[in-house]
Amino acid sequence: MRMYDIIHKKRDGGELTDEEIAFFVNGFVDKTVSEGQAAAFMMAVFFRGMTDAEISSLTLHMAHSGDTVDLSRFGNLSVDKHSTGGVGDKTTLIVAPIAASVGCKVAKMSGRGLGHTGGTVDKLESIPGYKTSLSAEDFMEQVEKVGVAVIGQTGNLAPADKIMYALRDLTATVDSIPLITSSIMSKKLAAGSHSIVLDVKVGSGAFMKTVDDARSLAEKMVEIGKRCGRNMTAVITDMNTPLGNNVGNALEIQEAVSVLKGEKTGDLRDVCMTLASEMISHSLGISVDESLKKAENAISSGAAFAKFKEWISAQGGDTAYVDDTSRFQKAEYIHSVVSPVDGYIGEMNAEKIGIAAVALGAGRAVKDADIDHAAGIVLLKKTGERVSAGEELCRLYTNNHGSIEEAEKKYLEALCFADEKPTVKPLIYGVIR
Amino acid sequence: MRMYDIIHKKRDGGELTDEEIAFFVNGFVDKTVSEGQAAAFMMAVFFRGMTDAEISSLTLHMAHSGDTVDLSRFGNLSVDKHSTGGVGDKTTLIVAPIAASVGCKVAKMSGRGLGHTGGTVDKLESIPGYKTSLSAEDFMEQVEKVGVAVIGQTGNLAPADKIMYALRDLTATVDSIPLITSSIMSKKLAAGSHSIVLDVKVGSGAFMKTVDDARSLAEKMVEIGKRCGRNMTAVITDMNTPLGNNVGNALEIQEAVSVLKGEKTGDLRDVCMTLASEMISHSLGISVDESLKKAENAISSGAAFAKFKEWISAQGGDTAYVDDTSRFQKAEYIHSVVSPVDGYIGEMNAEKIGIAAVALGAGRAVKDADIDHAAGIVLLKKTGERVSAGEELCRLYTNNHGSIEEAEKKYLEALCFADEKPTVKPLIYGVIR
Repeated sequence: MRMYDIIHKKRDGGELTDEEIAFFVNGFVDKTVSEGQAAAFMMAVFFRGMTDAEISSLTLHMAHSGDTVDLSRFGNLSVDKHSTGGVGDKTTLIVAPIAASVGCKVAKMSGRGLGHTGGTVDKLESIPGYKTSLSAEDFMEQVEKVGVAVIGQTGNLAPADKIMYALRDLTATVDSIPLITSSIMSKKLAAGSHSIVLDVKVGSGAFMKTVDDARSLAEKMVEIGKRCGRNMTAVITDMNTPLGNNVGNALEIQEAVSVLKGEKTGDLRDVCMTLASEMISHSLGISVDESLKKAENAISSGAAFAKFKEWISAQGGDTAYVDDTSRFQKAEYIHSVVSPVDGYIGEMNAEKIGIAAVALGAGRAVKDADIDHAAGIVLLKKTGERVSAGEELCRLYTNNHGSIEEAEKKYLEALCFADEKPTVKPLIYGVIR
Repeated sequence: MRMYDIIHKKRDGGELTDEEIAFFVNGFVDKTVSEGQAAAFMMAVFFRGMTDAEISSLTLHMAHSGDTVDLSRFGNLSVDKHSTGGVGDKTTLIVAPIAASVGCKVAKMSGRGLGHTGGTVDKLESIPGYKTSLSAEDFMEQVEKVGVAVIGQTGNLAPADKIMYALRDLTATVDSIPLITSSIMSKKLAAGSHSIVLDVKVGSGAFMKTVDDARSLAEKMVEIGKRCGRNMTAVITDMNTPLGNNVGNALEIQEAVSVLKGEKTGDLRDVCMTLASEMISHSLGISVDESLKKAENAISSGAAFAKFKEWISAQGGDTAYVDDTSRFQKAEYIHSVVSPVDGYIGEMNAEKIGIAAVALGAGRAVKDADIDHAAGIVLLKKTGERVSAGEELCRLYTNNHGSIEEAEKKYLEALCFADEKPTVKPLIYGVIR
């Protein structure tokens, strides 16, 4: 078998066999397939697409290119949630303890933030003492006992995805449904959960900019996950506006705690309830309605918040901070951004708000940069709300005074003001099972 | 400027600027553009094509990526001929001295054979003493004095083409009209001739298998050459059947000599007359009809053959061999292949005949392999001719007895026999100026 023939076949619109796809994945990992061949192949896939059978093969071979996590001891109870990335997306912090509190097993690996989107691992590190790295044994034991553990991604999970993604990022082959699907799903399959709930974000702050594109990706991931033997749901949620009100690591922990305590309602809680009920439904094998009741009860009874503290404590975090979030170190500078006009907030550009938060120190413009856990933005007015000239729109938090001017400029650029109350977009565009 | 954006623009069907194309070519040569990026870019070009303006830019930047030959001292007289490659194609050996004998300046660099196609440099090396490498000064002086010099390609002519072609060959991006055009034309531009006559071969032994494809390529090369300020003709000629009767290096020299001496007529002479008259017409600025008369006269007067000997002698070759071609060393084994049936030769597959010749030792299956100058095939019956069972079809020449069986098998596989006289395909499908 030659890589040349595989590229040629895909280039001319042929359907590749499982053996051919394995030859590519394994060859690229062991370097017998060159970077140029892999890039040409992925560009051919960009143009020609892949059948579901091909995507399933690709996903499985990528998933098996490195270590896999064996969660079989948890039977059907293991469940994962994955977001395609957004601004202010702290849903993992909320849905994981809700699900664990009703008996699901959430053994989760999360990423760090890059660019305008945050990462769960960075958020958790805002809590003094929290360890984002556990031995495999401790990780399993915690999932067994507590029902939830969240750590950073280990090095050798789906290494084929790592090198393929790095190359796609340089060769303009990122936005291909078969390649996005196999990238996300290979990591999820390697991470081992029996059920997977995907939060596919759509809008200005998301990778997918249109509902049609998001729906295509969501449907494809659900199809491929099922073909690979997993229970699947994809929820398509809005990311034109940041989710909730807080953007930035410690600020997001505080907001998650207020949802878990039942103090806060609104878009963030609504999305979490939908995601959590899908997780519970798959994990426990009960209806979504029944699952939703369980999720709501987990909040109102305090069980979810108790489970959150149990989890944080098990991973070494100081729960005094979550009991009393005023203990989180405050940013040195808190700057109010006020409205320049009377009117309504017609649109927000979540990506620009994410970039404003990065400027304040809350995220990373480049990989491995340091972040300021206290930095971020609290949104006081969101899309559709009325504002008066001079009224406070948001508060910027930072320890770097020099960043405020740029962040304020970016934040105001992210807003469109309207004279009349705009139609607010749906929060959830669809649920695909 | 970033290569990523250039790939993305082409991928989405945009037209690249001259600066963007220069960025790619120069970046790939100096390795600031990676192999993966170059491969993805060329696959995007495969799918999206290029405008004539883009191909011209690409061709010029490739041509200027290394050394260029300055033939300006010859004014409009310099003229080159290039074939896209075939089996039994010894036209350079004939048209170069014809053109030189009437005053054209033929300063030519030729290639070596690879795979089923032969190379002019290998053929010339059949003549004892012939030097395929000259200093730049000697090369120019010979063109000045004799009117013709043919050497091997120098190392640093269009290095961008060299690395692009090597990558295309591994990544299934060879058969793209913009990339073939820029590859061929960049080398021709760098080689410096003011007029260029292309012999675009079509058929079973050629790179282009259909007349439509050959015509598209021919038209594109003529257009791009003109845009780059050269006089251009492309002649589309048949390569379903090998050209002439002899395949193999010394055998082809002998056949070329018999055409130059006026002894041999037929397809080979006809193609040479068309090519030579186009060369003369561009070079001397006279009509094609007038040029054809000059070419015919060059043969009948003996001027062309005299020029051939002058050229060979100037490059150190022993002209006793061309005066008396029986001096060429004979192959040790000469094997007759006979017809298994009564009938007509309906079709020949020139590629398979080329492969049979390679098996006998006449060519290279892999780069840099040794060749046997005496090896090859003399075709006694060609497409459309009647044969009886047991009648000689061809003679195989080799110094490797073990190769005969395989070559005979291949040769017979290359033939289709028909009960009725087949319609023979045209020899020349078109002339594009």
